[in-house]
Amino acid sequence: MSKNIAIVGATGAVGQELIRVLEKRKFPVGSLRLLASARSAGKTMKFAGKDLPVEELKEDSFSGIDIALFSAGGSISKKFAPIAVKAGAIVVDNSSAFRMDPGTPLVVPEINPEDIKKHKGIIANPNCSTIILLMVVAPIHRINPVKRIVVSTYQAASGAGAVAMEELRTQAGDYLAGRDVKPTVFPHPIAFNVFSHNSEMDFENGYNQEEIKMVKESHKILHTDDIAISPTCIRIGTFRAHAESIHLQLRDPVDLEKVRAALAAFPGVRVVDDRKKNYFPMPLEASGEDDVLVGRIRHDIGSSDGREMDMFCCGDQILKGAALNAVQIAELV
Amino acid sequence: MSKNIAIVGATGAVGQELIRVLEKRKFPVGSLRLLASARSAGKTMKFAGKDLPVEELKEDSFSGIDIALFSAGGSISKKFAPIAVKAGAIVVDNSSAFRMDPGTPLVVPEINPEDIKKHKGIIANPNCSTIILLMVVAPIHRINPVKRIVVSTYQAASGAGAVAMEELRTQAGDYLAGRDVKPTVFPHPIAFNVFSHNSEMDFENGYNQEEIKMVKESHKILHTDDIAISPTCIRIGTFRAHAESIHLQLRDPVDLEKVRAALAAFPGVRVVDDRKKNYFPMPLEASGEDDVLVGRIRHDIGSSDGREMDMFCCGDQILKGAALNAVQIAELV
Repeated sequence: MSKNIAIVGATGAVGQELIRVLEKRKFPVGSLRLLASARSAGKTMKFAGKDLPVEELKEDSFSGIDIALFSAGGSISKKFAPIAVKAGAIVVDNSSAFRMDPGTPLVVPEINPEDIKKHKGIIANPNCSTIILLMVVAPIHRINPVKRIVVSTYQAASGAGAVAMEELRTQAGDYLAGRDVKPTVFPHPIAFNVFSHNSEMDFENGYNQEEIKMVKESHKILHTDDIAISPTCIRIGTFRAHAESIHLQLRDPVDLEKVRAALAAFPGVRVVDDRKKNYFPMPLEASGEDDVLVGRIRHDIGSSDGREMDMFCCGDQILKGAALNAVQIAELV
Repeated sequence: MSKNIAIVGATGAVGQELIRVLEKRKFPVGSLRLLASARSAGKTMKFAGKDLPVEELKEDSFSGIDIALFSAGGSISKKFAPIAVKAGAIVVDNSSAFRMDPGTPLVVPEINPEDIKKHKGIIANPNCSTIILLMVVAPIHRINPVKRIVVSTYQAASGAGAVAMEELRTQAGDYLAGRDVKPTVFPHPIAFNVFSHNSEMDFENGYNQEEIKMVKESHKILHTDDIAISPTCIRIGTFRAHAESIHLQLRDPVDLEKVRAALAAFPGVRVVDDRKKNYFPMPLEASGEDDVLVGRIRHDIGSSDGREMDMFCCGDQILKGAALNAVQIAELV
C-alpha cells in the first residue's frame, strides 16, 4: 500500500510544509526523495526522525517514484512533470503550468474529488487564493447557487515563498529601527504596507494574473462559467495566512441559518463568528491550521432583494492554500 | 481677518496633526489655545516656532475663541461642544457625536461645501473611512450616478489614536524578537495580523459601527439614500493610511476615460494608476500626503452590462481622514 514519493522543490516554503504534512497525516510513504536545484543539493532535511539528503533534480530523478509532488515554479513543472509521468509517476503540480489545460484536472478534494479520475498523469493544485475562496463559497453554492462574487484579498508574504517571508521580517526590523527599507523580492515595501498583487498585469483589462486565476480556476473547479467573479488581489504585511472579504449574490434569497449550517458541516471549514465578542477569523489564528476559518457571515446591508450576503475568511496559504491540498490530492490518488 | 482657535484634544494623534496643518496651510491664526485632559495640562507644544502651553479643558476654556476644533472623542464633544457654541465659537467636531444630527452639517469640503451654511454652531467632520471613500466616489457620482458600492477596507492603526500606533510598533518588535504579544489598545494583535474592525457591533445585523457610519454618513454627505452601500471594515497592521478596495455599479455604462478624467480633475485626489509598472496606491506613499491616491481603475471583469467598475484608494487617516478635512472646514467658515 505504501507509495514512493518525490518532492520537487523540497527546500522551498511549500516543499518544507509538504514534508511536514506527509508526516503529520501519516501518509503511507515507502521512500521519500527530496529534489531541488543544484544549489540546495547536499543539504539534509528531517522526515519521520531521519535525515534525508536533498538531491539535484535531474531527468532520471523519477525512477521508481509513484507520486511526485511539484512545487518549484511553472517552468520546472513544464519541463519535468512530463518526464516524471513518462517514468511512471503521478504528478500533483502546485504551479500554474497545467491548471487551465483542459486535460488536467484542477482539484480541491472537498469540492471536486471526482475530477481526479480523469487525470492523464498530472493533477493540478489550484492557486492559494482560489482554494481559500472556494472552500467557503462551494458549500453555499451547493444549497443556493452563487451568481456573483466580489472579493478583495489580504494576501500574506508566503505566497511569494520563504524568501518573501524573510523579506517581511527584515524590512519590519529595518523600519522599526529607522533604517532604510530595501525591497528585493517584492517590487514595493511589504512591511507596514499594502500593494496591488505583484503578478503580471494584463495592460488591456487592468487585472493581474492572480485575479485572472481566481476567475478561471474557480469556474473550472465549480464546473460553471455562470458565476460572475470580480476579484481585487492585494498583498499586505502578514506572514502566511491569506484573508478574503467576500460579497456574494445568490440565486435565491439568503437563508442565513442554512448558510451557516452548510459552512459548519463542510470538511476543512471552521466557523469563527462570534458577534458578541467581536471575534472573527484572523491570519495569526489561521496560521498553521488545516481549516479555513470563516466569519462575519451576514445578510448584505445594501441588498434590496435579500439575495446578497457577505463573509470574511482566513486560510493558511502554505497549508490549505498549497501543501495540504496537494497531499489530500495524493491521498485520493 | 485672523481667528482665535482652540484645539480640544491637542495632544492626541489628530490634535498634533491639527497644529501642523494650521501652520502648514498658513491658517490666519490669531491666538491658539491647546486644550486637553488634566493629565496633559502643563506640557508645551510647538506652533509657528513658539512653545504653547497645554491647558486643561474646562467649561470656561472657550471665551474669546472663534473656532474650536474638537478631537477628543464623542463624550467630550457632547459635553463641551454646546458650551463652546454658547461662548460664541463655531465648532468643527471630529467625533461621531453630532454627525447624524439632522441640524448639524456633515462636510467634506470638496464634495458638499454648501452644507456648511446651514450650521447652528457645530459642523461635523465625517469618519475617516467615509471621507476617503467619498473623495474617489463623489467625482464619479457627479458624471454617472452611483447605484451600488461594495467596499472592503484595509484600515491603519492610527484610527484608534497615537496609543494604537505605538501598540503596533511595540507588538511588531516583540513579535520579531520572539516575545509574547500583548494587545491592550486593540482586542486582538495588530502586528502582522488582520481583524474585523473593533467598533461596537450590531448583534442583529452583524455590522459594526464603522460600517454603519460609512453607509449613513455617505448618504448624508451625498444627499441621497439611493446608493446601496455594502462595507466590510477591517483593521490591518499599517500605521496611518487607510486603503479601500471599491466596487461600483453606476446608472449608465462606465466610460473609463471620463471616470479617469473626473478623478484626475477632482481637488484632493491624485491618480496613481500605472499598469505597466504595476504601480498603484500604497499606504506608505499616502502617509503624510494631503491627497487621496486612487488607482486600479478598471472595468469590472464580472460585469454583464458594462455598468460596473472597480478601483483601489489610499488616504492618510490622520490628514484627509481627520485633521486636514477639519481645517478645510474651518477655512470655509
